[in-house]
Amino acid sequence: MVSQVVAEEKPQLLSKKAGCNSHGQDSSYFLGWQEYEKNPFDPVSNPSGIIQMGLAENQLSFDLLEEWLEKNPHALGLRREGGGASVFRELALFQDYHGLPAFKNALARFMSEQRGYKVVFDPSNIVLTAGATSANEALMFCLADHGDAFLIPTPYYPGFDRDLKWRTGAEIVPVHCASANGFRVTRPALDDAYRRAQKRRLRVKGVLITNPSNPLGTASPRADLETIVDFVAAKGIHLISDEIYAGTAFAEPPAGFVSALEVVAGRDGGGADVSDRVHVVYSLSKDLGLPGFRVGAIYSANAAVVSAATKMSSFGLVSSQTQYLLAALLGDRDFTRSYVAENKRRIKERHDQLVDGLREIGIGCLPSNAGLFCWVDMSHLMRSRSFAGEMELWKKVVFEVGLNISPGSSCHCREPGWFRVCFANMSAKTLDVAMQRLRSFVDSATGGGDNAALRRAAVPVRSVSCPLAIKWALRLTPSIADRKAER
Amino acid sequence: MVSQVVAEEKPQLLSKKAGCNSHGQDSSYFLGWQEYEKNPFDPVSNPSGIIQMGLAENQLSFDLLEEWLEKNPHALGLRREGGGASVFRELALFQDYHGLPAFKNALARFMSEQRGYKVVFDPSNIVLTAGATSANEALMFCLADHGDAFLIPTPYYPGFDRDLKWRTGAEIVPVHCASANGFRVTRPALDDAYRRAQKRRLRVKGVLITNPSNPLGTASPRADLETIVDFVAAKGIHLISDEIYAGTAFAEPPAGFVSALEVVAGRDGGGADVSDRVHVVYSLSKDLGLPGFRVGAIYSANAAVVSAATKMSSFGLVSSQTQYLLAALLGDRDFTRSYVAENKRRIKERHDQLVDGLREIGIGCLPSNAGLFCWVDMSHLMRSRSFAGEMELWKKVVFEVGLNISPGSSCHCREPGWFRVCFANMSAKTLDVAMQRLRSFVDSATGGGDNAALRRAAVPVRSVSCPLAIKWALRLTPSIADRKAER
Repeated sequence: MVSQVVAEEKPQLLSKKAGCNSHGQDSSYFLGWQEYEKNPFDPVSNPSGIIQMGLAENQLSFDLLEEWLEKNPHALGLRREGGGASVFRELALFQDYHGLPAFKNALARFMSEQRGYKVVFDPSNIVLTAGATSANEALMFCLADHGDAFLIPTPYYPGFDRDLKWRTGAEIVPVHCASANGFRVTRPALDDAYRRAQKRRLRVKGVLITNPSNPLGTASPRADLETIVDFVAAKGIHLISDEIYAGTAFAEPPAGFVSALEVVAGRDGGGADVSDRVHVVYSLSKDLGLPGFRVGAIYSANAAVVSAATKMSSFGLVSSQTQYLLAALLGDRDFTRSYVAENKRRIKERHDQLVDGLREIGIGCLPSNAGLFCWVDMSHLMRSRSFAGEMELWKKVVFEVGLNISPGSSCHCREPGWFRVCFANMSAKTLDVAMQRLRSFVDSATGGGDNAALRRAAVPVRSVSCPLAIKWALRLTPSIADRKAER
Repeated sequence: MVSQVVAEEKPQLLSKKAGCNSHGQDSSYFLGWQEYEKNPFDPVSNPSGIIQMGLAENQLSFDLLEEWLEKNPHALGLRREGGGASVFRELALFQDYHGLPAFKNALARFMSEQRGYKVVFDPSNIVLTAGATSANEALMFCLADHGDAFLIPTPYYPGFDRDLKWRTGAEIVPVHCASANGFRVTRPALDDAYRRAQKRRLRVKGVLITNPSNPLGTASPRADLETIVDFVAAKGIHLISDEIYAGTAFAEPPAGFVSALEVVAGRDGGGADVSDRVHVVYSLSKDLGLPGFRVGAIYSANAAVVSAATKMSSFGLVSSQTQYLLAALLGDRDFTRSYVAENKRRIKERHDQLVDGLREIGIGCLPSNAGLFCWVDMSHLMRSRSFAGEMELWKKVVFEVGLNISPGSSCHCREPGWFRVCFANMSAKTLDVAMQRLRSFVDSATGGGDNAALRRAAVPVRSVSCPLAIKWALRLTPSIADRKAER
C-alpha cells in the first residue's frame, strides 16, 4: 500500500539543485559582466566601450611564459627534453588520479619556493583538481555534511555562494569585518559568527579564508592568522586557507604573504593540535595567469582528507597533456624564480598606477600588497550612504563612466561604497583611459555635465591596438555574460 | 539554550562522505588491479607477471593519432594552422564553461558522424565535462535529489556505485538481466526494478544504460531501446544513455550501434513526449583512447539540464589546451572518417582473436559487437555454481594463471561464472600469451598439475618487447592499486 502511494506521486522532473541554479548570476557581480559583453572596450574599434575591471585575470607576464615555451618546445610538443621521443601515448592513457609525479613534485617545489621555503610542501599531500573551484568544493564535501557551516570573513569572493553551497548543501556564515580596522579578522568577529551559526542551529565545521584576500588585495598579517588558527584550535574545527593569490603578494617581508601552514608550524608543539585540520587550496590561474588550463590543488596533512579528496578528484582531473607541460615549466627553477620576481614587480607597478591615479582624483583604497585588484572606497561619491546608494553609483560607473567594477555588496560587505577594481587584465594604456574617465566623472559629480560625452572625449588620440585584447576568433557563438569560471 | 546544546556537541571531524570513502576499492574489481600492480607482465623483463585484462583501454590506434600529430604540429604547438600565430595567451585565459566553440562544433560533428548522421548533434546542447565520470555525476545532481533512484540494468560498470551515488546521495536499483536471453533488458525486468524501488520508498527518477554495454560488449538492439524508451515515457522519468563506447561498435548495420536519440526521434510525434528527458553521455576516452585528457560531454535537449549542468561544469572544465588540440583533430573529417573505420577494424580483429582463442579451449562468450572487452562464461570451470565458486575461480585466474580479469559479481551480475575480459590494452602477442596460459589452466583443470609451472612454461620464446607496454618513467612514487579513474 505504501508503495502504491509513492507510485501515484508525479515525480519531480529535475532535482532541487537544477531548479535552483541561479548560480549567483543575478548578483551585480555578474550583471556588470553582461553589460561589458554587450559593449566591450577596444582602444581602436570601440574606444567608448566598457572597460572590464571586474575580471581578476593576470595578463601581465604572458611574454615570459611565451619566451619559455619558445625555448622548450618539447613541453608543448609532448616530447622528452632535448627533442626526444614522444610521450603522447603515455599521456593519452595517464588517468592516475594521484597525478603525474613529475608535475606534483614540481608544483610542491614551486609552492615551497613561493613561501620562501618557510613551508615545505610534500607532494604526497597534494590532491590535484580541475581548478580551485573544484578544490574548494571537494574540501567542502570532505569536511561538511548537508546543513553544516563554514565561517567566511567578509568581504568575500561572490562565487563562494555557488561553489561551496550549491551541490554540497553546506552553509556559509559571514564573519563581519569592517573598514574601521582595515577589514581585518578579529576574535570577537569570529566568536560572533560562531554564535550566529549556533542560533541558526548550524554545526560549524570550519573557517575559510582567502589569503591573500579576494577582494581586499591584502595578505593576512601573521597576527591575524594566529588569531584564526587559535580560534580553530579552540573550537576543534577546520581551516581552509585559499592561497591562490600567493604569488601576487608583492610587498617585501615581513609585510608580505605568510601561509597559514607557516603559522601552524610556528605553534607550540609544531602545531600538532591543529595541523590535520588546516587545508590549503592553490591554483595556477592567478599566479601564472592560466585559468584556462584548469589546474588547482588541495594540500592537507590529514590523510583521510587526502584520501577522500583524491578519490573525488576523479570527477575533475587535470588533463595529462597540461600536467606534462606544467611539469616542465615549474620544474625549471631558474625560470620560476625569475618569473615570480618579475611578475610581482609588474603587478606592483600596475597596482601603483591604479592607486596613484585614484588618489589624484580623491579616491582612496584600502592599503594593499597583493592580488590583481584594489578595494576602493567610493562612498563619498554616493548620493546616500546605503546599499541603494552603492547600487546607484555602481550603475553610473558601469553605464555612464564605462567601467565594469564589482560593488562591495556582491562580496557581502556590510558597509556600502566599496568596490573591487581589477587592474591586471588590461594594458597600462587602457588603465590610463579608465583613470581619465573616472576623473571626468568625479569632476562632473561636483560640477555636473554629460558623463557619456566626457567619456567619448576622454579617449586619447594616441591609443593603439591593445596587445592583450583577446579577440575571440575561435568563438563561433555570440558571447553571453557569465560564461566564466573565474574567481 | 538550544544553541548551548549544539555548542557542547563535539563536532564530527570529517563529513560522512569522507568517512565512507571506500570508493569500491574493496571490490574484487580493484583487488585484481592491486595484484597486477605488484607483478605486472612484461614480455621481456617479467614474462611470468600478471597480464592486465581488467582495463578497458583502447591502445590499438595510437599510431594513427601520432601520424596525424606529426602532420599537424600546430595543434599541439598552440598555433594557428599553417605555422601561424601563437594562441597560447588566448587559451591560457579561456575558461568559458560553454567550451571552445571550435571544439564543441567538431565534437558535435564527430558524434553525428559516428551515428551515421541518423542523429545530428547541436553544439549548443553539449555540456563539456572533465571526463564521463564527471558527466554522469553532474547529470545525477541535475536529475536526482538525495534518496532518489536510478534503475540500471545488470551487469553494470562497478564504478557507478561510486560515481553516481557517493556525493549526490542518489541510489541505484538494479534491473536484473539474465543469460537466458543474452542479458537483454525486458519490460518485466524494468517493471520489477521499479516495484522494488517503490518498496524501498525510493522515488525513481530514471533509467541509466550503457550502450554499447560495459561490461557486455554489446550494442543495445533497437527493439530493446524502444522498450526502454517506452518505459521511460510511460513512467514520466528520465533516460541517461551512456554512449562512451559508440565508436567501438564494429558490427555492420542493422546489427550495429543505435543511439537512444535515434530511437527517440523515430517515435510518433518525433519523440516530443520524451525528448527532453533523454540525455546522452559521451567521452573521448574509449573511442579515441584518450582517458588522460579528461574529455567528457553531456548531450541533452532539456534546456534546464543544459543550463544547470553547464554551471556545474565549472567544477570540472576541460583544459583549453586540450580543447584546442582536439578541435583541430576532430575538425579533420578525412582523418576522423578513416580513423573510426580503421579503429573498428582493429578492435574487431582483436575481439575475434580473443573469442576464437577462448572457443578453442572450450570457453564461450556472450556474442558481442562492440566494446574493448568480452563477457566470458567460465561457469563450467567453477567447482561450485555459486559466487564463492566464482571468487575461487577468479583468484586462481589472477594468482595461478596470471590474468587479471573482472568477476561478474563486481558488476552486480546475478549469475556466477561470468567475467569481463579486456583485449584492447595489449599487443596481439600478449593476448596470445594470455590464451596459452588459459589453455594450460583449462587442460590442467581436468588433468590436474602445477599451473604456476605451466604459466612459466607457456611464455613463448619469440616474445619481443611489447611496443605498447607503458613504462612509467615519469612515475616517481611506487605505484598503488586503484589509482585510475578508468571505466
